[in-house]
Amino acid sequence: MSVSERGVIHSLPVPVDLRKLVSPASIAVVGASQDTKRVGGEIVLNLKAGGFRGDVFPVNPKYSEICGYSCFPGVTEIGKSADMAVVAVNAELVPNVIRQCGKAGISIAVVLSSGFGEAGASGIKLQRDLDDAIAESGVRIVGPNCIGLMNVRRHMYCGFGPGFRNHGLSKGPVAMVTQSGGYGFSVVGLCNHQGIGFSQIISTGNECDLSTADLIDYILDDDEIKVVVTYIEGVKDGRRLLEVGQKALACGKPILCWKVGNSVVARNAVASHTANLSAPYELFKTAFSGSGYIEIREIEDLVDIARGFLGGRIPRGRRVAVVTTSGGSGVLMADRCDEARLTLPEPPPALLESIRSMLPPHSAVTNPVDMTAQVGDDAASFNRVVKAFVDSPAYDQILVRYGAVQGVNAPAWATGMVAMAQATQKPVLVAWSRVPDTSSKALQILEEGGVPWFITPGRTVTAAAALGDFHCRQTKLQQSVVGPDEWFSKVPINLPPRTDALGEHASKQIIAAYGIPVVNERLFNLAEIENLEQSPFAFPLVVKIESPDIAHKTEAGAVITGIRSLPELRQAAGKVAASAKKHFPDAVIEGVLVQQTCSGMELILGGFVDDCFGPVVILGLGGIHAEVLKDVTRRFAPVSRASAREMIFELRAAPLFSGYRGMPPLDVEALADAIFRLAHLISHHKDQIREIDINPLFIGPAGTGVIAADALVIANIEQKAQ
Amino acid sequence: MSVSERGVIHSLPVPVDLRKLVSPASIAVVGASQDTKRVGGEIVLNLKAGGFRGDVFPVNPKYSEICGYSCFPGVTEIGKSADMAVVAVNAELVPNVIRQCGKAGISIAVVLSSGFGEAGASGIKLQRDLDDAIAESGVRIVGPNCIGLMNVRRHMYCGFGPGFRNHGLSKGPVAMVTQSGGYGFSVVGLCNHQGIGFSQIISTGNECDLSTADLIDYILDDDEIKVVVTYIEGVKDGRRLLEVGQKALACGKPILCWKVGNSVVARNAVASHTANLSAPYELFKTAFSGSGYIEIREIEDLVDIARGFLGGRIPRGRRVAVVTTSGGSGVLMADRCDEARLTLPEPPPALLESIRSMLPPHSAVTNPVDMTAQVGDDAASFNRVVKAFVDSPAYDQILVRYGAVQGVNAPAWATGMVAMAQATQKPVLVAWSRVPDTSSKALQILEEGGVPWFITPGRTVTAAAALGDFHCRQTKLQQSVVGPDEWFSKVPINLPPRTDALGEHASKQIIAAYGIPVVNERLFNLAEIENLEQSPFAFPLVVKIESPDIAHKTEAGAVITGIRSLPELRQAAGKVAASAKKHFPDAVIEGVLVQQTCSGMELILGGFVDDCFGPVVILGLGGIHAEVLKDVTRRFAPVSRASAREMIFELRAAPLFSGYRGMPPLDVEALADAIFRLAHLISHHKDQIREIDINPLFIGPAGTGVIAADALVIANIEQKAQ
Repeated sequence: MSVSERGVIHSLPVPVDLRKLVSPASIAVVGASQDTKRVGGEIVLNLKAGGFRGDVFPVNPKYSEICGYSCFPGVTEIGKSADMAVVAVNAELVPNVIRQCGKAGISIAVVLSSGFGEAGASGIKLQRDLDDAIAESGVRIVGPNCIGLMNVRRHMYCGFGPGFRNHGLSKGPVAMVTQSGGYGFSVVGLCNHQGIGFSQIISTGNECDLSTADLIDYILDDDEIKVVVTYIEGVKDGRRLLEVGQKALACGKPILCWKVGNSVVARNAVASHTANLSAPYELFKTAFSGSGYIEIREIEDLVDIARGFLGGRIPRGRRVAVVTTSGGSGVLMADRCDEARLTLPEPPPALLESIRSMLPPHSAVTNPVDMTAQVGDDAASFNRVVKAFVDSPAYDQILVRYGAVQGVNAPAWATGMVAMAQATQKPVLVAWSRVPDTSSKALQILEEGGVPWFITPGRTVTAAAALGDFHCRQTKLQQSVVGPDEWFSKVPINLPPRTDALGEHASKQIIAAYGIPVVNERLFNLAEIENLEQSPFAFPLVVKIESPDIAHKTEAGAVITGIRSLPELRQAAGKVAASAKKHFPDAVIEGVLVQQTCSGMELILGGFVDDCFGPVVILGLGGIHAEVLKDVTRRFAPVSRASAREMIFELRAAPLFSGYRGMPPLDVEALADAIFRLAHLISHHKDQIREIDINPLFIGPAGTGVIAADALVIANIEQKAQ
Repeated sequence: MSVSERGVIHSLPVPVDLRKLVSPASIAVVGASQDTKRVGGEIVLNLKAGGFRGDVFPVNPKYSEICGYSCFPGVTEIGKSADMAVVAVNAELVPNVIRQCGKAGISIAVVLSSGFGEAGASGIKLQRDLDDAIAESGVRIVGPNCIGLMNVRRHMYCGFGPGFRNHGLSKGPVAMVTQSGGYGFSVVGLCNHQGIGFSQIISTGNECDLSTADLIDYILDDDEIKVVVTYIEGVKDGRRLLEVGQKALACGKPILCWKVGNSVVARNAVASHTANLSAPYELFKTAFSGSGYIEIREIEDLVDIARGFLGGRIPRGRRVAVVTTSGGSGVLMADRCDEARLTLPEPPPALLESIRSMLPPHSAVTNPVDMTAQVGDDAASFNRVVKAFVDSPAYDQILVRYGAVQGVNAPAWATGMVAMAQATQKPVLVAWSRVPDTSSKALQILEEGGVPWFITPGRTVTAAAALGDFHCRQTKLQQSVVGPDEWFSKVPINLPPRTDALGEHASKQIIAAYGIPVVNERLFNLAEIENLEQSPFAFPLVVKIESPDIAHKTEAGAVITGIRSLPELRQAAGKVAASAKKHFPDAVIEGVLVQQTCSGMELILGGFVDDCFGPVVILGLGGIHAEVLKDVTRRFAPVSRASAREMIFELRAAPLFSGYRGMPPLDVEALADAIFRLAHLISHHKDQIREIDINPLFIGPAGTGVIAADALVIANIEQKAQ
């Protein structure tokens, strides 16, 4: 974690106290204007009209006063140092303004101006000037190309656009960091309408300095914030995003996340929007599933999952009881639970007995329980059944849908629910299933009692699934913490200088150095093969040309299999050499590779270094499975053996490993070990190696191990020093 | 189609005029009560309080008057015939009430009573009594175990439970048929709150007679209904559901559908809810994708997709233009379009030129267009750009998100949008992105102008995707209509009497009768093989035991491959016979099957007869693909060759057929032909055959055909007469 002290970030060029950003005592508005149709005028107006209680220092040599605030010709002339500056001048002027801020002792600036990285060649040059100004001045930047920030708790409406004109927002324990201000603030408005209040909202635009991850990192330390929301188009440092997500998971605060810019057409649009280009979506998904990010698609997901977490209860497992007076809702919730890998165990015999005695004759006494409409307004009976499930150790969460919630007895029912929910550590979630304002009294009781409620049965399960999943991720994160002695120690490797792709034999030596079993093979020259008096290995053999310049040997006729005698071996060696020379006359030939034949189920095990997320390990079945069917699984390297094992069972083809259709179970332990070793190899040597592919890696029955039959290592030609 | 005249259904035992159900002039309430806490009392009260303008005839010997209506001791004593009866008596009394209705000339009854098929053994017996009563009386039934129906247009609140107490529902061009009354009526209330009004809502419960499909069929003929909604747990006649869906597709009305009861746990719950047990979910999905059903998950899907269709425009293709003032919304919509297989083509050069001249400098002139917040309140400029896209033949739908929609100029902007939208046949959809009631004037203009609007950018794409998809399904349905000469004529087949599984050779003779190529093979007895003077086919050969009693020959040592000489053949024949005898001493041995060896990519082609959906054809890749990875595709049989071709390209493994990684393209035409033939075989002989599996079916490069290497036909032992 890069935060050693609350709110002070050290991983960045200059540590910065982000309290000055989020809760400044004073704000300088550079490029302020008396014309409120201009951004610089609108900001001052919004600060004023929103009721910001700190000092506001408009800066513009043209004016002496704006909105009743004294105006200053420059930031250095304010007389005292502002906590924070908001910059709304033309892009070309921004670098100089930042330098001035530095001189004036302002440590952080929010740059609204656009025309930087998102605006083509001239903008990219300007962004570089801005980078220089940041480095020289020590001023830390949010933006450029953002629309500002809001602190509802402090009545600070510090930005421009329609989102800042709504001063009636109610505050709540949710914060947002968004790369798109327009989208983000419309979300805030819509959520407020559905009863979810935000405390802080920060738009980050191009993120040339402070990033989404930096800001979330700070926000997670705020005790009043329970849920974080973010909209991400791309990030520069994927590992930092992961780290912050793991911090969120550890402290029990979800980060609800819109990840966009994933399709080809959307990535092009991002380039001209915030220029936050980055890694493939699959890697973000890998990061999210291993940390506290929960991907959302709609306002409703945000509202429902936030409500779930704001209840303050995280379940201890995936076992759910569904209690309804509507069979239809019960059936629907059962399906949704199943999709979300929540289970609905049958009530244990004693519980069954006790519920049966409480229910009318046509009720379905199982899970989901359907008490039918016959229970009517008898809230006490309904709640007795709920209580029986709450008290049963067979369930981790209780989902409730009571049809008579709109009746006159609804407040009494709600009061009963609150009492039950407050007396247990399990989440008790209510599917409201009515228009909220027709039954406001009961709803208000639930709200005030901290019982999460949801408009529909389906949305109730959305929240339950997020809670259940969060618990499982927390458990996995705890389990993945292993002592340093369980990690693989770094082994030096030798890469030939100035080479991109290595030959097959050279590649295998690299993976063998990390203890991954490779097929028996030896490199010969033609003369050596002519003089062989016995086969180096048991027949049948395979002969291949060894050359870093021939990627597709089979297509070049440079592979011969099924060799069963010395004469066949000699003939094959000559043949592959001739064929290689014919197809690739300029290729460097390093010899003829003679291998023992091996077999098993074909896997692909690989590693690569992503610019954003760093080293990654990837596993799939061979043949068409990885390439056509995309049945692959990924982790950031290095991984523990436990995570490696998880990867195997995440494949859609996983049943094959456990002994499919009378086949023996495969050697999962050996495979997990190979994944573990490859992940350490790519991780230790990420500066020297760009990519490793073991294809195929054969896996045999349990106890017989795995073996790499072919491998390719691609070096990083820049080959940075280790 | 089973409807030959508007509203009169002939496919059922007795034709019935459903106008008498949906818009009755008079209703008899059997089991009426003065106690409004009882169902029979609540119904009368709801009819009264809701303002039903027809006659109401309470029936109960105990009372002379209920809610001001004269009460009658029995339905035969009303004196005139009611259009419809609502039955709210104890389950045991229902069959007799139905017989009485028949005598009283009442042709249709809604049975609310529960305690039938959903209530275990005694209920199932009662349901059989009810079936008899229906058959004897000729009275048609909705229910039992339903909660009633509503006709908002006619102020007819004819049911019980909280859904019927809300008489303030606004009417609209949407109808619902729901197997769960509780769920359905809560949906109606929530949709009303979001501005979607319903006209008719019918709950159907157990559907012992009139089904969801029957009622939707009738509703589709109502010109005032534009969108149908349904909640389905299961159906008895899947083909009828499909037929009605195809009718909906043809007439341009979507059926928005919750299909629940799909998971194991939910299917169990359905049994005790409405007892509508039926086919696997996969077959419903097959039915939906080939007709007008659109699966939905939430109220929001219903609201948004309904709004999209109520705009009255169906796009002519999948090409979308996205025009925004928010880059973030544009990026998000681009991603969602991509997921939904909507394309965002770049603007053609002339359009590009013309838009560029209209836009401020930092705008992203591409698709999605981001005009940025700089366009501000200048609605005219914004709309000019929208118009340019609307007018371009390069786009089928236009999605618009205008940030300043809440400004004072919003009404003028909305008026411009309406003018544009009304002048084009393309859908123009508006992403509102604000709380609806803060800008009611502009919203009202859009509403009244018939321009569909959506709360968020993402939900706008949900609607656009449904519209685009509906168009594609309509096109496919039109194309699938082929002349009778293009179908395969029925061929007689011989099935051995009283046999379940046929032997391999016998099975292949069945499929060969339908022209599916089978491997060269001949059945011998051991003596014949001993006396063979030459091989019946070119070596290498395969030898198998032929027995209807040995399903897994390989496991029984009853298959030997790679036979390259006559002596090997003789030896192998003896070996498989001995091995079969050892493993299955009681098996009937019909001989030794000698086959030529064949090869190619392995496929599985099969057919089966589902109790609910009838004959189905199914295709997958061999090996683990179909069984472990579930990469299979299905159609209801028979299929056209065009549909057969579609099936092939729906597989996840489809790239393999087009020539993957330097492999030649495979013989798709021959495969499509085999699918076509198998589908006709299972369809023609669905009463005699339960299942057919060709596994493997080998496919070779284009022009080389397909060949069935192994096959299994399972006869229907009941073997109904054809």
